[in-house]
Amino acid sequence: MPSEFELIARYFDRPARGALLGVGDDAALVRPGPGMELAVSTDMLIEGRHFAAGANPRALGHKALAVNLSDMAAMGATPRWALLAIALPAADENWLAGFTRGLFTLAERFSVDLIGGDTTRGPLAIAITILGEVPDGLALFRAGARPGDDIWVSGALGGAALALAARAGRATLGAAQAASAGRRLDEPEPRVELGERLRGIATGAIDISDGFAGDLRHVLERSGVGALVHYARLPKAPEFADLGDEQLERDCVLSGGDDYELLFTAAQSSRTEIETLGGGLDIALTRVGAIQPGDKLVLLDARGAAMTCGGGYDHFAS
Amino acid sequence: MPSEFELIARYFDRPARGALLGVGDDAALVRPGPGMELAVSTDMLIEGRHFAAGANPRALGHKALAVNLSDMAAMGATPRWALLAIALPAADENWLAGFTRGLFTLAERFSVDLIGGDTTRGPLAIAITILGEVPDGLALFRAGARPGDDIWVSGALGGAALALAARAGRATLGAAQAASAGRRLDEPEPRVELGERLRGIATGAIDISDGFAGDLRHVLERSGVGALVHYARLPKAPEFADLGDEQLERDCVLSGGDDYELLFTAAQSSRTEIETLGGGLDIALTRVGAIQPGDKLVLLDARGAAMTCGGGYDHFAS
Repeated sequence: MPSEFELIARYFDRPARGALLGVGDDAALVRPGPGMELAVSTDMLIEGRHFAAGANPRALGHKALAVNLSDMAAMGATPRWALLAIALPAADENWLAGFTRGLFTLAERFSVDLIGGDTTRGPLAIAITILGEVPDGLALFRAGARPGDDIWVSGALGGAALALAARAGRATLGAAQAASAGRRLDEPEPRVELGERLRGIATGAIDISDGFAGDLRHVLERSGVGALVHYARLPKAPEFADLGDEQLERDCVLSGGDDYELLFTAAQSSRTEIETLGGGLDIALTRVGAIQPGDKLVLLDARGAAMTCGGGYDHFAS
Repeated sequence: MPSEFELIARYFDRPARGALLGVGDDAALVRPGPGMELAVSTDMLIEGRHFAAGANPRALGHKALAVNLSDMAAMGATPRWALLAIALPAADENWLAGFTRGLFTLAERFSVDLIGGDTTRGPLAIAITILGEVPDGLALFRAGARPGDDIWVSGALGGAALALAARAGRATLGAAQAASAGRRLDEPEPRVELGERLRGIATGAIDISDGFAGDLRHVLERSGVGALVHYARLPKAPEFADLGDEQLERDCVLSGGDDYELLFTAAQSSRTEIETLGGGLDIALTRVGAIQPGDKLVLLDARGAAMTCGGGYDHFAS
């Protein structure tokens, strides 16, 4: 069996072109550019909670990094460097080859260097820390939404939760729909370029990891405002189209989580600019409501009646 | 049961005085000082591997941060910011209160801010990422040892491994010795000030986490040199004094790991400066051997005969 150090050398020790020092010492060394602030975030994925036992290792490598890249997108930061702490039940080289292929393929797309980490034995757990750069004063925060701002959402919502429901037997999807919803769950696309381009435009931003309603509430709480949202305007994943299960659709779209789309607010005067931006990036950007004074989230259905919806995902409530 | 967000607010969300933005957004924001490089490292602790089930949570909070501070010390970096990713089997508030007391007490001693993290449910796993600053060009590396350099060790070796052996029934210690060895294992003291003061003095450095011999080998490999070490000169934890078990002592001192002392190399011309430094910090600094040309680690016993010793700790070999 290869040793811990052989595994690191074989699978994790790649040249870190954008770092002063990468894998192999007690720490990595990086130097943020002049005039740059450093955005730092960490996310942990646990087998049986964030992914099923036996999950495809390549997809898992993609997702473990993607959820962290998504945090950079929500800050308007350009991801630069990542560290990986991983506990593995065994030194399974096939698994590691797949996992690192998924991880490094995504990392290379965004010019992110893996600069450090820790490899140990234990129940499968993956914690990635991401570091990114954002020009001084231009980071996007949850706490910037103002009454009158539009509320925007990128892409489409609910597809990841629908895939999860289908795998649990709570929904029946055709093969093509199961596959495309499954990709939303297993291989989310972090909205990095969108986040970068929203610097100076978005007044508040968050990535939708816990569900639209819960994540919007985080923005409202931090900003000290309320919101009015029209459910009919929310962009729904196309896999819901033929399903005819309104309750499931609503649960997935509002509270499903794992979408990794961006939810952001912006002044009404930015509408044209944002539409042009979405067109240029080929990402659907949809206006779904407005920020209001107060502290309430009001959700209206297609007939203008108030809807109730649960909060976001809570790891200790289930 | 408190929600994930209530737990974060109650236990982890402390003012981050040295950061632009701390816990509570998609990422934290920090700005390294002018002329500073950023040292970044991550370490993961897993129940049943790095600590026993039922371990004292306060000590665990201390140790989880201490092992990361030790990596900063080995780089000559000043620790500034930490992120905590933690998987917990349940929202046990007594446990969390103890864990965060241990963590924050140590963090405050070194003016380290907890700026972010991730809290989830799962088998107990703790991954901390530490960020520190070091003036441009002054970081300590494993790869700087040169033939003729002295090899130095801080503090005393083997005590942590001895405590582990005693708990496993492989050694019998008196109550006072069990307690003091136990503190070496459970609450190691990271050598942060020593690492900072060794900038410009040490030619190579590493912290002893996997055992003296294995960690020295990392320095030798990275530096492309060999070494001659006199076992009799190695500083041994005082808890070995009355034990009379030479084999166990040798195993613990050479291969035990978990000591978190610094092993460093320096030119012979630095001897007086290093002795003065150790006196000022009240840390024993012991010269244990010399760097040599070649690639061999030669260990001599008290009679000048070559000793064999195993490697360091390998998470996938046991």
